[in-house]
Amino acid sequence: MPVFTEFSASSRELRVLPSFAPPLPRLSPPFANPSPSTTTTSSQPQQPQEDKYEVVIVGAGPAGLMLNLLLARYGLSDSSLLCVDAKSSTLRSGQADGLQPRTLEVLKSLGLADEILNDGCHMEEVAFWNPTGKKEGDVIERTSIVPDVSVPARFQHEVTIHQGRIERILETDLLRYSKRGVQRNTRLIDVKIDEESDAEFPIIAEIETEHPENGQKEKKIIRSKYLVGADGAHSNVRRCMGLSLEGESLDHIWGVVDLVVDTDFPDIRRRTAIHSPAGSVMVIPRERIATGDYLTRLYVQVPEIEIEAGDDHKAKDAAKARRAGVTLESIFQHAAEAFKPYYIRPKEDGAVDWWAAYQIGQRVSGQFTVKDSKGINRVFIAGDACHTHSPKAGQGMNVSMMDSYNLAWKLIYSIHGLTPGELASAKSDPVLDTYHLERHTIAQQLIDFDRAFSSMFSGKIGSEDGIGQALTHEQFLEVFSTGNGFTSGCGIEYPENITVEKFKDDAKRKNPITGIDYLSGILCPGRRLLNVRVKRFADGNRRDLHDDFLSTGRFRILVLTSSDLLNPTGISAKTLSTLSENIIPSFPHGTIEQVVVHPRLTISNSSNGSNGANGTNGTSKAHAYPYDTFTWRDLPAALKERSEMRFYSGIALDDIYSIYGVSESHGAIAVVRPDGYVGVVAALDDVVTVEGYLGGLLRRV
Amino acid sequence: MPVFTEFSASSRELRVLPSFAPPLPRLSPPFANPSPSTTTTSSQPQQPQEDKYEVVIVGAGPAGLMLNLLLARYGLSDSSLLCVDAKSSTLRSGQADGLQPRTLEVLKSLGLADEILNDGCHMEEVAFWNPTGKKEGDVIERTSIVPDVSVPARFQHEVTIHQGRIERILETDLLRYSKRGVQRNTRLIDVKIDEESDAEFPIIAEIETEHPENGQKEKKIIRSKYLVGADGAHSNVRRCMGLSLEGESLDHIWGVVDLVVDTDFPDIRRRTAIHSPAGSVMVIPRERIATGDYLTRLYVQVPEIEIEAGDDHKAKDAAKARRAGVTLESIFQHAAEAFKPYYIRPKEDGAVDWWAAYQIGQRVSGQFTVKDSKGINRVFIAGDACHTHSPKAGQGMNVSMMDSYNLAWKLIYSIHGLTPGELASAKSDPVLDTYHLERHTIAQQLIDFDRAFSSMFSGKIGSEDGIGQALTHEQFLEVFSTGNGFTSGCGIEYPENITVEKFKDDAKRKNPITGIDYLSGILCPGRRLLNVRVKRFADGNRRDLHDDFLSTGRFRILVLTSSDLLNPTGISAKTLSTLSENIIPSFPHGTIEQVVVHPRLTISNSSNGSNGANGTNGTSKAHAYPYDTFTWRDLPAALKERSEMRFYSGIALDDIYSIYGVSESHGAIAVVRPDGYVGVVAALDDVVTVEGYLGGLLRRV
Repeated sequence: MPVFTEFSASSRELRVLPSFAPPLPRLSPPFANPSPSTTTTSSQPQQPQEDKYEVVIVGAGPAGLMLNLLLARYGLSDSSLLCVDAKSSTLRSGQADGLQPRTLEVLKSLGLADEILNDGCHMEEVAFWNPTGKKEGDVIERTSIVPDVSVPARFQHEVTIHQGRIERILETDLLRYSKRGVQRNTRLIDVKIDEESDAEFPIIAEIETEHPENGQKEKKIIRSKYLVGADGAHSNVRRCMGLSLEGESLDHIWGVVDLVVDTDFPDIRRRTAIHSPAGSVMVIPRERIATGDYLTRLYVQVPEIEIEAGDDHKAKDAAKARRAGVTLESIFQHAAEAFKPYYIRPKEDGAVDWWAAYQIGQRVSGQFTVKDSKGINRVFIAGDACHTHSPKAGQGMNVSMMDSYNLAWKLIYSIHGLTPGELASAKSDPVLDTYHLERHTIAQQLIDFDRAFSSMFSGKIGSEDGIGQALTHEQFLEVFSTGNGFTSGCGIEYPENITVEKFKDDAKRKNPITGIDYLSGILCPGRRLLNVRVKRFADGNRRDLHDDFLSTGRFRILVLTSSDLLNPTGISAKTLSTLSENIIPSFPHGTIEQVVVHPRLTISNSSNGSNGANGTNGTSKAHAYPYDTFTWRDLPAALKERSEMRFYSGIALDDIYSIYGVSESHGAIAVVRPDGYVGVVAALDDVVTVEGYLGGLLRRV
Repeated sequence: MPVFTEFSASSRELRVLPSFAPPLPRLSPPFANPSPSTTTTSSQPQQPQEDKYEVVIVGAGPAGLMLNLLLARYGLSDSSLLCVDAKSSTLRSGQADGLQPRTLEVLKSLGLADEILNDGCHMEEVAFWNPTGKKEGDVIERTSIVPDVSVPARFQHEVTIHQGRIERILETDLLRYSKRGVQRNTRLIDVKIDEESDAEFPIIAEIETEHPENGQKEKKIIRSKYLVGADGAHSNVRRCMGLSLEGESLDHIWGVVDLVVDTDFPDIRRRTAIHSPAGSVMVIPRERIATGDYLTRLYVQVPEIEIEAGDDHKAKDAAKARRAGVTLESIFQHAAEAFKPYYIRPKEDGAVDWWAAYQIGQRVSGQFTVKDSKGINRVFIAGDACHTHSPKAGQGMNVSMMDSYNLAWKLIYSIHGLTPGELASAKSDPVLDTYHLERHTIAQQLIDFDRAFSSMFSGKIGSEDGIGQALTHEQFLEVFSTGNGFTSGCGIEYPENITVEKFKDDAKRKNPITGIDYLSGILCPGRRLLNVRVKRFADGNRRDLHDDFLSTGRFRILVLTSSDLLNPTGISAKTLSTLSENIIPSFPHGTIEQVVVHPRLTISNSSNGSNGANGTNGTSKAHAYPYDTFTWRDLPAALKERSEMRFYSGIALDDIYSIYGVSESHGAIAVVRPDGYVGVVAALDDVVTVEGYLGGLLRRV
């Protein structure tokens, strides 16, 4: 291609970079750090300086990093946002390893799922092994294999991968948006609310930074509007705020070990629950490592003392003694017994990566936020700081990151002045109030599920001796399967609140939804919008609908138009016109996107073929596409203007009307929150409900 | 999870990093740069220094970067490998924008496809527009829409994306393996072969580096074993070596423009071929850019002079004159005429990204390599240096990168002493000879296809005047569709050579393949192995078979076992044992991997249920998986030892026996080259053929 003349715009040079998420608009006054810190050097006196930030995050584990990243992407700069962590680098010895389907959906919506999906271990199936029931020399046999994820989800599996790798992925991306990144080697000493000296920045935190080279420590006072404690199970923020975890420690003791195994056990690469006469084991297959070997995680029950009801103190002492006696050798010994008639051992010397022993406990904080005297939420806790539980259902890292995912958009909407309240946090923001309500509900469900699951898992199945006899494999499987909606993260449902407007039977408005099988995708306020496969009108691309619901902090109006879409005076056309011309422009520019789907459409002769450009006659076989029967000229003008690349056939691939429980003849509208959860569902002509819902959350312009 | 005791191996800390491709083993002596260059500073005298490298690459466009990256991944360090480029950074104003399905498969096998797939524009459909045929005020109408890719491929679409972004992705990955990366601001002045002064490093190149800050130039002499010219259509390497492009320039003149359009044309987001009474236009939809807009590329024909046969000189002059007169305004004017009755214009001021005018020419070099006096290939050319053609079929960047992909493994096998010849390149290496043979064949096909396609595209269709009248839409569609195997990259077939052993009817060995529809996946030496979906035995994972054929430089033996796999004395078991114990170990460790697939298997009573671990009885409905009927104990021990995580059901998802043309009762073996092309196919018991094929390419150990 010998070019002889060429012109190139300078903007074109930027096109080679990875895509950046667009920040949210800011209606509140821009934040300027009123007292920027001078560069800290070790020669300065130890007198604390005072910096100001809009948000301070304490802790950079999965919860803290996720929050930091989201706020940075949404628009908070380094001068406005500070995240500190006591450690000197991203975690390298974390214990969590499981990512649930819903977490994968969220990571995908952030553009962060690829490495995890490529290199992590996909757990697609679960095997159950139980005693054969033969009395002497009793061993185990496979009872069943079932799918690991039994609910519809974009990714029909879990992924296991080193927690440190998740953190490294989050931090690497953070550094695209933040020059500073996480401020390391910095621990929180104290935090308190002091409204008198500065009502706008009422949080006072004292932090201490240790110089990475000379070890000198420097203290500093920082003020902020908000502070989030993502500082783990032993949260100092929680302690300083006088919150506490409530619940009990049960005395089941487990050993956990990550290693490369040598075994003839058939299901070593499946997630496997073994209930053997010699105790329980859970097998978690892990990712491939640089040697080419595959890791395995084993959870091994340490037998044998059961809880003695009414004598908690004695039971706890006994458990403590047993726990102290756990060694790597004893873990292997118990595992070897449980795997019989199969053998299992480390593949070779050095094959053990990490091991630990732990005691199961389920505890949750009664409050996830602390308000100031005006009722404004000022301090938040997230992740392990709010809830601790056993690791075997693979929930910890997931629920923690989802805490932050829930909090981030509410916080930025408030800070950026996008919510209807007064600017500058002069009074309580009801959107922020929903954080505790929503996430505490989920945490409590997590604790309840984990307690039931752990107890069952620590019991025995089908053997003729021991107290576990009453628990059949079928009962265990039932708990496992019904829990899957919850454990997968795909079935959680937030309760009614200002951001979740449930349909009530006594409401005057029509309910456009048929069906109640919400796990399968029926639209339900409070649940996440299920991903479906759709075919785009403009270019015929087959796409995942979730790819139009990226985690960029925007609300989306999903319009499922009805079969009258081609009628210029029909309800679909009217609704699209009202949304586009009246409703969306009445809220801050760039906070609402519109996604439109069409059902089966029949075109009348009068509107078809007006100029021969609508496609060929019916004789050609290449034209089985529904869009061959109509073009943009047959559609409402407002549709192309606002949603040219977000307009899909809802029936060409998945039958999404059926999946979402919407009739093709009547259609429906759903407003989806920035975190992908359905906020409200309304009849197609009920734009009043849509406007009312958005008006409660967004400032009018 | 309150841990009280914890142990962590130090190796675990490495697990947080992205995965690296494992280098290939090296049997030849390690290379140590005999005269390492001192750091160049501008104050040094201009006397040329002399450095030595094993490979020097000239040019860091898509071809050069791909080769550099592959060789670095395969194991060449910065002291052994140098890539120079005259430009100061990765390309920011390149013209190529299309990635074909086969290129996407290769990028995926390198772990480099994700950003491209996420952010690029997927072209899934092609629309054809032709004159309505009404005489006065004739305009265009849509004739048909067809899939853009009509052959089976892992990705059923092309992707369009800025060439600079491809280069940035390649270079970013290169910097994970090479500290230096590309040496920029460095141009090649001269290159020659001089065997007398140093027979092992006979290539002498003179390069000149311009200091990026002070502009001072420094010359240097570098010696190398091999030199690759990936320096574009005006290749200096090609010129110095006395090679030349052969072929003719046709006089079709086209304008090309990248912009954000404002149009009511219905197929602006589809790849579209418009044959209008006013000339031809091709629409190439492009990626979304940071503004949220979508780019469009338009190729616009500049009318109207046709070639006058027999008077080339006159035609060329006329073309030149027309070409010089092309302006952005004239391009838009021609486009506006061709799009009637629709309007098209830049969306706003500044919406034009880049534009150029070009003249179609198809030319190819007669030789892609230059040998020394001993017959050893020493200098190679790749990419545009070997072939130039029109851009409209979206081939350039693809064929160029595939040149390098073909060359890289052959070069590293030779340099690392993995081929059977003498070490240290003392004599000709027949594996290296295949580069010219294979890639020249493809280049010639490219040129031939492009000539036909371009001529047809520049003609007219269906109008009643002009010479294009003879060309019907059906004829054009036919060329387009039959060309799809070639243009997609999925249908190319390398000719017989030492790395491609075709089956001959007169051969004594049995042909295990039924069928000849190679485009649909029937195994064929010289064609790439088609990706299929398989279900892994060990963990039930649904996988793409291509994910076991990553571009890490390894050969793979794909064993399609027969239905006797569970018979310990059957052919399948015998073959697996021979491959595992005799054949694979006789070649360098880590150069051959084995992938195994099984067909429908029925288990005899005697081998089933030996210890109750083979699954449950038939009453449970959760057990429809074939692997429930047998476990590792029923399979040859060699299988698990060598291919535990590369053993699949070939019938649970895709019916791969049928797709590959292999009978389930007889099975087959295919050896797949490091670049994913089938090298040889043999009957399941014909391990002699497999060993013979590998023995011709790999050194015995």
